[in-house]
Amino acid sequence: MRLAIIGFGFLGRNLLKAIWEKISLLRRIDKDFLVVGVANSKGYIYDRNGLNIEQLIISSDLTKHSGFRAKSAIDLIKENLCDIIVEATPTNIRDGEPGLTHIRLALSKGIHVVTSNKGPLVLAFRELMSLAEKNDCFLLYEGTVAGAIPIFSLVKECLQGDRIIRLFGILNGTTNYILSRMFFEEISFEIALKEAQEKGIAERDPSYDVDGIDAACKVVILANALMGRDVKINDVERTGIRGITQEAISLAKKANYTIKLIGTIDKRLEVSPRLVPINHPLCVHGTLNAIHIETDLAREMTLVGYGAGKETVSAILNDIITVLKKRLQATS
Amino acid sequence: MRLAIIGFGFLGRNLLKAIWEKISLLRRIDKDFLVVGVANSKGYIYDRNGLNIEQLIISSDLTKHSGFRAKSAIDLIKENLCDIIVEATPTNIRDGEPGLTHIRLALSKGIHVVTSNKGPLVLAFRELMSLAEKNDCFLLYEGTVAGAIPIFSLVKECLQGDRIIRLFGILNGTTNYILSRMFFEEISFEIALKEAQEKGIAERDPSYDVDGIDAACKVVILANALMGRDVKINDVERTGIRGITQEAISLAKKANYTIKLIGTIDKRLEVSPRLVPINHPLCVHGTLNAIHIETDLAREMTLVGYGAGKETVSAILNDIITVLKKRLQATS
Repeated sequence: MRLAIIGFGFLGRNLLKAIWEKISLLRRIDKDFLVVGVANSKGYIYDRNGLNIEQLIISSDLTKHSGFRAKSAIDLIKENLCDIIVEATPTNIRDGEPGLTHIRLALSKGIHVVTSNKGPLVLAFRELMSLAEKNDCFLLYEGTVAGAIPIFSLVKECLQGDRIIRLFGILNGTTNYILSRMFFEEISFEIALKEAQEKGIAERDPSYDVDGIDAACKVVILANALMGRDVKINDVERTGIRGITQEAISLAKKANYTIKLIGTIDKRLEVSPRLVPINHPLCVHGTLNAIHIETDLAREMTLVGYGAGKETVSAILNDIITVLKKRLQATS
Repeated sequence: MRLAIIGFGFLGRNLLKAIWEKISLLRRIDKDFLVVGVANSKGYIYDRNGLNIEQLIISSDLTKHSGFRAKSAIDLIKENLCDIIVEATPTNIRDGEPGLTHIRLALSKGIHVVTSNKGPLVLAFRELMSLAEKNDCFLLYEGTVAGAIPIFSLVKECLQGDRIIRLFGILNGTTNYILSRMFFEEISFEIALKEAQEKGIAERDPSYDVDGIDAACKVVILANALMGRDVKINDVERTGIRGITQEAISLAKKANYTIKLIGTIDKRLEVSPRLVPINHPLCVHGTLNAIHIETDLAREMTLVGYGAGKETVSAILNDIITVLKKRLQATS
């Protein structure tokens, strides 16, 4: 299979590194596995015989590589130059672009898509899944929710007999970092936020995280993917953590609770600060994410892991391997 | 596929209930799915057209069902009357019997095996896996370790690109219950053990749990299955929790730690009481189990769930569905 990476920021570059480290594993699964294209907002490079991955890891500036074309990634997808794309452009929840166009185009041409981009799935989950089915190709998105925690493949492959009743989770690492610092260091929201910004954990404009928008996006994807729903971000009741005072956290602490920003996927969809007993498995700290699943057979299960950062590459690579294996099974 | 349940105790009966509840799901996957046999230590019942599951759920005394034969389950397996068995007889780590004979016989005849029985895997993991491979059939054992936590299928299906570096875990619910009561209620080991025995969480002879033997069995299976090892129970350094005093737990508590019985699967294999920070994701209480995985890509991940009881049916049913799906793929 010929793979192209669309979006060559932090995640795309770390993915390429991991592919290089694991190239013999990938070739054992698919002896024809090649990375043929890499695109960013400036243009793309393409080689039908496979790109020089080592050089790309050393220098990620695509314009400096031979064969660079100052053209849109759309051309790379349009020309049937690849069999699978990893769509790793930044999330944009207003109109999903440029990812939405990339994914629509790829799926309509029967090209498999693995993505870490929440925007297109938040805006058009059912449309894109139908498009994938119609064109007999895969759309996998493990990297979109809770980073390295393999929530979608876990439910699909490891809880095949269970009925999911509801899910709760800490779905945003930035707010968990802020709330953890407020809990342990007894500092105010403002100081904890400033510290998170200095460490690069929070953005300069932190509203996407602290107002619960990012967590709400993940609630939408979880509800659509795991609960058979067809919901949009406006279906999520949303309250962020700006109103959480040090006093509120201190009071909670005295009663052996803490306050976490919890996404709830039940009949109601919600993102809001909630009291969590400090002994509950969901009560994890720092930038960790956690998802608590309730099912009819296993009853309760909690998964904890890194919700962002390069650990997400684990989820993306797992999706790529799933496509390689299932496609080879289908054609063998 | 024709399924037989060998061992009709607590787990076997709860499995049959779950199969009945999920029968339409199972028939959607395999329209020919039937439960044709159920065996216990007294004998077995068999019907080539499928047993009356409802009646079996109402009355689990096999001797009272029509067609009961006071013969060994070995005959049921020998006669090629089924395509897949669930081996759910009690764990016996001295000689693995009767499970070891059941599993060997089934695999040698190309019958798929799903088991919750640790004994045969602790004693003969490599032999049985080779036998399964040689006869082109499945030997799945999700229910043997940490109950409902799907650790084996998670690693196999959800961390396909990751290299497992090491694992740690709370692998025994009984000792976790005792240590949790000692931590929260500030009672002695003896009183906590007595309470656990009264609640049916600990056996009258508690040594299998409190001396770490059960956890050591799980360490052996995890090491062999996930780390490519070929180890036996004597390769596990083992210390139980009888020596843990209330004073030790109080001291730990003052420093924001607690004491847990931890199984370690690393270069060294070990079961021993360890200090765990109370804020660590592994620090879960009551009868919960938890497994902490370290990998090269996802870095750290923790799974928490019920380690025993009827929740284990989730793991067994997932294994059955995996066999049905993969076998149907192979023959389609």
